[in-house]
Amino acid sequence: MIAGIIGATGYVGAELVRLLCGHPEVNDLALSSTSFEGQLLSDVYPNFLGRVGTKLLKAEDLIGESDVVFAALPNGMAEPFAERCMDKGIPFIDMSADFRFDDDEESYKAWYGKPYTNRDLHKNSVYGLCELNRGKIQEKARPSGLLSAIDGGKPEALIVGNPGCYPTCASLAAYPALVKGLVGEGTIIIDAASGVTGGGRELLRAYHFPECNDSLTAYKVGAHRHTPEISRNFRKMESPEKNRDGAKEYPAQMENERPIIFTPHLAPMNRGILATLYIGLAQKYQISRHDGASPRPPTKEIETLEDDIRTLYTQFYQNEQFVRVLPKGLYATTGRVRLSNYCDISTHIDQSGRTLIVTAAIDNMIKGAAGQAVQNMNIIFGFHENSGLEYIPALF
Amino acid sequence: MIAGIIGATGYVGAELVRLLCGHPEVNDLALSSTSFEGQLLSDVYPNFLGRVGTKLLKAEDLIGESDVVFAALPNGMAEPFAERCMDKGIPFIDMSADFRFDDDEESYKAWYGKPYTNRDLHKNSVYGLCELNRGKIQEKARPSGLLSAIDGGKPEALIVGNPGCYPTCASLAAYPALVKGLVGEGTIIIDAASGVTGGGRELLRAYHFPECNDSLTAYKVGAHRHTPEISRNFRKMESPEKNRDGAKEYPAQMENERPIIFTPHLAPMNRGILATLYIGLAQKYQISRHDGASPRPPTKEIETLEDDIRTLYTQFYQNEQFVRVLPKGLYATTGRVRLSNYCDISTHIDQSGRTLIVTAAIDNMIKGAAGQAVQNMNIIFGFHENSGLEYIPALF
Amino acid sequence: MIAGIIGATGYVGAELVRLLCGHPEVNDLALSSTSFEGQLLSDVYPNFLGRVGTKLLKAEDLIGESDVVFAALPNGMAEPFAERCMDKGIPFIDMSADFRFDDDEESYKAWYGKPYTNRDLHKNSVYGLCELNRGKIQEKARPSGLLSAIDGGKPEALIVGNPGCYPTCASLAAYPALVKGLVGEGTIIIDAASGVTGGGRELLRAYHFPECNDSLTAYKVGAHRHTPEISRNFRKMESPEKNRDGAKEYPAQMENERPIIFTPHLAPMNRGILATLYIGLAQKYQISRHDGASPRPPTKEIETLEDDIRTLYTQFYQNEQFVRVLPKGLYATTGRVRLSNYCDISTHIDQSGRTLIVTAAIDNMIKGAAGQAVQNMNIIFGFHENSGLEYIPALF
Amino acid sequence: MIAGIIGATGYVGAELVRLLCGHPEVNDLALSSTSFEGQLLSDVYPNFLGRVGTKLLKAEDLIGESDVVFAALPNGMAEPFAERCMDKGIPFIDMSADFRFDDDEESYKAWYGKPYTNRDLHKNSVYGLCELNRGKIQEKARPSGLLSAIDGGKPEALIVGNPGCYPTCASLAAYPALVKGLVGEGTIIIDAASGVTGGGRELLRAYHFPECNDSLTAYKVGAHRHTPEISRNFRKMESPEKNRDGAKEYPAQMENERPIIFTPHLAPMNRGILATLYIGLAQKYQISRHDGASPRPPTKEIETLEDDIRTLYTQFYQNEQFVRVLPKGLYATTGRVRLSNYCDISTHIDQSGRTLIVTAAIDNMIKGAAGQAVQNMNIIFGFHENSGLEYIPALF
Repeated sequence: MIAGIIGATGYVGAELVRLLCGHPEVNDLALSSTSFEGQLLSDVYPNFLGRVGTKLLKAEDLIGESDVVFAALPNGMAEPFAERCMDKGIPFIDMSADFRFDDDEESYKAWYGKPYTNRDLHKNSVYGLCELNRGKIQEKARPSGLLSAIDGGKPEALIVGNPGCYPTCASLAAYPALVKGLVGEGTIIIDAASGVTGGGRELLRAYHFPECNDSLTAYKVGAHRHTPEISRNFRKMESPEKNRDGAKEYPAQMENERPIIFTPHLAPMNRGILATLYIGLAQKYQISRHDGASPRPPTKEIETLEDDIRTLYTQFYQNEQFVRVLPKGLYATTGRVRLSNYCDISTHIDQSGRTLIVTAAIDNMIKGAAGQAVQNMNIIFGFHENSGLEYIPALF
Repeated sequence: MIAGIIGATGYVGAELVRLLCGHPEVNDLALSSTSFEGQLLSDVYPNFLGRVGTKLLKAEDLIGESDVVFAALPNGMAEPFAERCMDKGIPFIDMSADFRFDDDEESYKAWYGKPYTNRDLHKNSVYGLCELNRGKIQEKARPSGLLSAIDGGKPEALIVGNPGCYPTCASLAAYPALVKGLVGEGTIIIDAASGVTGGGRELLRAYHFPECNDSLTAYKVGAHRHTPEISRNFRKMESPEKNRDGAKEYPAQMENERPIIFTPHLAPMNRGILATLYIGLAQKYQISRHDGASPRPPTKEIETLEDDIRTLYTQFYQNEQFVRVLPKGLYATTGRVRLSNYCDISTHIDQSGRTLIVTAAIDNMIKGAAGQAVQNMNIIFGFHENSGLEYIPALF
Repeated sequence: MIAGIIGATGYVGAELVRLLCGHPEVNDLALSSTSFEGQLLSDVYPNFLGRVGTKLLKAEDLIGESDVVFAALPNGMAEPFAERCMDKGIPFIDMSADFRFDDDEESYKAWYGKPYTNRDLHKNSVYGLCELNRGKIQEKARPSGLLSAIDGGKPEALIVGNPGCYPTCASLAAYPALVKGLVGEGTIIIDAASGVTGGGRELLRAYHFPECNDSLTAYKVGAHRHTPEISRNFRKMESPEKNRDGAKEYPAQMENERPIIFTPHLAPMNRGILATLYIGLAQKYQISRHDGASPRPPTKEIETLEDDIRTLYTQFYQNEQFVRVLPKGLYATTGRVRLSNYCDISTHIDQSGRTLIVTAAIDNMIKGAAGQAVQNMNIIFGFHENSGLEYIPALF
Repeated sequence: MIAGIIGATGYVGAELVRLLCGHPEVNDLALSSTSFEGQLLSDVYPNFLGRVGTKLLKAEDLIGESDVVFAALPNGMAEPFAERCMDKGIPFIDMSADFRFDDDEESYKAWYGKPYTNRDLHKNSVYGLCELNRGKIQEKARPSGLLSAIDGGKPEALIVGNPGCYPTCASLAAYPALVKGLVGEGTIIIDAASGVTGGGRELLRAYHFPECNDSLTAYKVGAHRHTPEISRNFRKMESPEKNRDGAKEYPAQMENERPIIFTPHLAPMNRGILATLYIGLAQKYQISRHDGASPRPPTKEIETLEDDIRTLYTQFYQNEQFVRVLPKGLYATTGRVRLSNYCDISTHIDQSGRTLIVTAAIDNMIKGAAGQAVQNMNIIFGFHENSGLEYIPALF
């Protein structure tokens, strides 16, 4: 099968190339680039020398040749390509924010400053957080459930909005707690840091080596575009039954968004996102206050609650091969998931017994972008979900 | 004047040497080291070649020669040296946790696993967060207020417990909000990251280059020893009048500690602490809820509140030469305070209008350790507070 | 097939595990560790969580279970294991220096301070620089040439001394020039730098993050143990016909060693070796001196020579899939071979037209250690030489 | 006194600001910037907040206000400013290459692509490698020798061409060997690496964090513009008597340039240059060949020669406060001179006894640029040579 990548010379595009080259079901790649059209990929990325000599096409020419199309373009450019793929019956996986908001045009417009031009596309798109929406994606891709890639059947055309890097990390960190009703009403705080590849290939002062090396900074405090995506994910996760009957009701204005605070930071490393979440426990899960002198519950009670929640997380993710709930004593660390599709998670209870602290680590370019896109392709086509994603991270 | 440093070959000790060498009032240094006694400092630290050839003495021999003594020892070892200095009438500035808890032996014991051996020492010690306790230190050092270093008068003997690195950063970040009553009742969250020098000179796996380079991790979640120090500082800051009459009352068990959650991280850089604080605003400072569809107040109202709080912070610190409240648009960044005694602070309001987010950056070895110790010495002796601390950070 | 790794918890051992897990012909691993015997590998290396749960055995117990044995031990410990493998007819690939000197016990002893205990083992061992000794390894492993792994035939027992990291990089950089007779009589200078993983897992001050981060240093100038290995390789390469008749003659004392100067440096990065070689050209290849004012030949002549030599290198390595001779305008860069088995090479002529400057980059842990060991295993067993080594490096 | 800096918003300009702020004789700064004219320096460099609020002027307006002018401009732009300063009798210190070649217009033109527009300026300029040309600078600045800054006398107008970063490091490394005649006729090889600030403030792909972090590369092999500057310095150093009678004669075309090979590398660190020099010893200093089996002289003889040369270097530099010849066992390391004006040097003899290997480290922005410029200012004005340059490097 041939995989097409529109925008193959951005960082996410280049990672897609790298991963798809090692995918057992992908025989060939069709690549496009506006800036480098006509050149070879290895002219732009010398790491591909001797491996990917593919010539960079116009995006238009690529679609016809491909069995699946990935678009790794700046936000706001995906619709026309999605439309063409739908017309031709080709699955379309979009790496930008354009298909992450389903039919909620208002949120998209508020944060990305642009209305939808073709609303129908968004009605049929699926948000591609695999662990959350695997079922939906499978359903759209193979409505009858009878055809499978193994039978040689092609999946239906569909549009997947591949999640943002921070939202992937934050959402996987909170998912079990939200879906199991552990979470109280308050604001969830997500304090996260990303490696510099998160800023992409564009040359900006903030990413000039001497100005970010050996230094840590916050940025876009309370104003990062990934905020509404995280917030929507959280709400969906705590209301899984919503689309059915008897769903929990929120005030209209809160229906789609969990109150959150999201603060991103820039860390002096190439890859990785580390998110630390502060999640207030629902009253019934909090350790009850004791009368007496101490403001804190006994250590033993905290440990028990901590063990219980770790067990709950571990069981929740036991069939997910890319989510690793860490054993006691370990903390999520970006270096240990580097270049892999893993999300490592550790859970902790604060000393007051009322807040769940979750740390989660992903490689922002893999599980946070290209890896999850390949995972989505695998789901769509009915391949083993880890095809092309078997890389084991090195510790160093 | 001669400054003595007990434990001059640890990282903090070595930084003290470096700073005191450039101090206009310090003519000579007396240095001690248990591990390297008899050697020259430059044998251990080749960066001092040609500059500090001082021989490393026994700690005992150093005290007699010094006009001020700094102790940069592991926790739990300072008391005997403090005692000797008090006997000899020499100011003693301790870099460990041993004198950071005043007479609150219980907290010290709970977190550092050791009782006090001489309680009287702690009754008379002062916690050396300069911006908070400048007055107290001056009072202890020059009770009459008539003598000054300029007159050649020597300060009284006193013990200063130099603050921890994280507590310094977190406390300066929260101080104006706490003292001005902006803060609500809830838990304050401090999410912070430190450079690897925070771990000191000891060779531990976590600080082996290949295992921490290009990687970010959380550690000691909810269990770091700086927690009670931060918590105490916050409580003191919000009850400044406490020691006088009419002070605000807290439940007995909360009297000394503000509920906080503190999560430290390890960042792949040499120096610096970046702390991000989430501080719930007191009801009256929150932006009032509007009826209607939006869960968020108008952007304009958030900006106004943000401006007001930035102004409040700026005015509060206007006479502090080492605290810089950043203008709108800038975020605290460790690289911009590297090697300096500055604490840079930026303030933000989250989009719900209810939480104050503060980011603060210091160099953990300078304002977070050796620099603040020198600042304390300056206060004790009545020198210009920035003597020896004039270094301007480089951006790169 | 089952691969055994003695010393699986050192850095090189852990890399072998990682690579062999992805090897299509390896079904299982048997791992040993002296320090962590009885634990799981993932207890020591959390990056393996969910992937390699193998229990760490005694080395003795591992040999019986394995079809091939890798030893990743400190220098001086391999002989007894090699002996046992030879007895049992199992190929043995040694990562230490113990089998890199063939029967030249004198050199080994001079540099590693230890005599051989079983000389016969060394008579039959092969030095495993694949590009140089592929033929010899194949010959030893399958003497008849009739049996192949595809036929299910097992290879003969043999011992491979896997090359050092610096020697691999330096030797591949010089090989075409030496074998083609381009090189003059003078000393070849190798100026190289390694990432910190080169120092292994042991906690040494030089590898403590704050003391090597953001800093570059030379070390062991003129005294690094890889010197004689490089020197021997160079001599072998320029006298390929030596073991046959009519070989070039060198003075007895120079017969085995090319005069070289090798200076290693430590660079603040995890992985990678960059070597820059200064190779005096043989008279006939130098650009001839022109009479007249300029001390330098015309740029055009330099460019022509440069093109010729690049072509020669390119052709020489055209069938080597792991050596990439870079096109004009590119320089070898460690980041572009990171985690891969590639050696990237660029060739240049200095402005006097008399010196060939070669830059070469490898990942010290892969082509410089574990990757090349797997390549050797592939050669021994007749697998595709890139089996398990298909990883494409990322640029970032 | 007022110091003017033309081009204060480049990296070198900003470093000059930082150093001059701490200079005891400088009362005020006048700063110019073409790109940021009218803004405050701290708007461009937030590290200066609270310290340098100076408004950025037009270069033209600055000259009249200044007692000394530094120009930190791109190459090829200094002449008109130099001219104006000469007219007004103000010392002019140029950080670009424009005044590094004295009256050798040909070399300048060959490497920088531009002729001189005012040759007279270059006849009177001095090359500002302080350790080499201190005397010349003093002579030009105070011809009578009677006036001194202490007497309030102003120095004469003069132009100093501040050396390049690589040439400073390489030249100090070779100086004692060259001037003492230790060096043979052959080519001297300089293999050096620089931190990324060496590339300045301009946003180039090579300096984009994700593409240079954790990676090492060579660049401009045999073609770096610092080559002729190094080469000229070496020739001057080995012919100190040249300008007098009886000077050593070289062939016309070699009169000004020592044959050298210079290879720069880019290392993943902010600051620092590490240069490793390979200098063939003159015959009489080589350890004589012994008959017999060994290709190498006895270790003892090498050590003796090594000690002799270290002593020679140490004595040569004993009165230079910014050059530190390291004791036996230490290697030059950029981290140990970081942010300081030091040049650390270590000397070694290769195992054949014929090549002197020198490693030298500087901070490229300080001794390699702004620091040396301040040192030149101190020489010109008769200040203590270390005024404003007392910073002791931190090890970490």
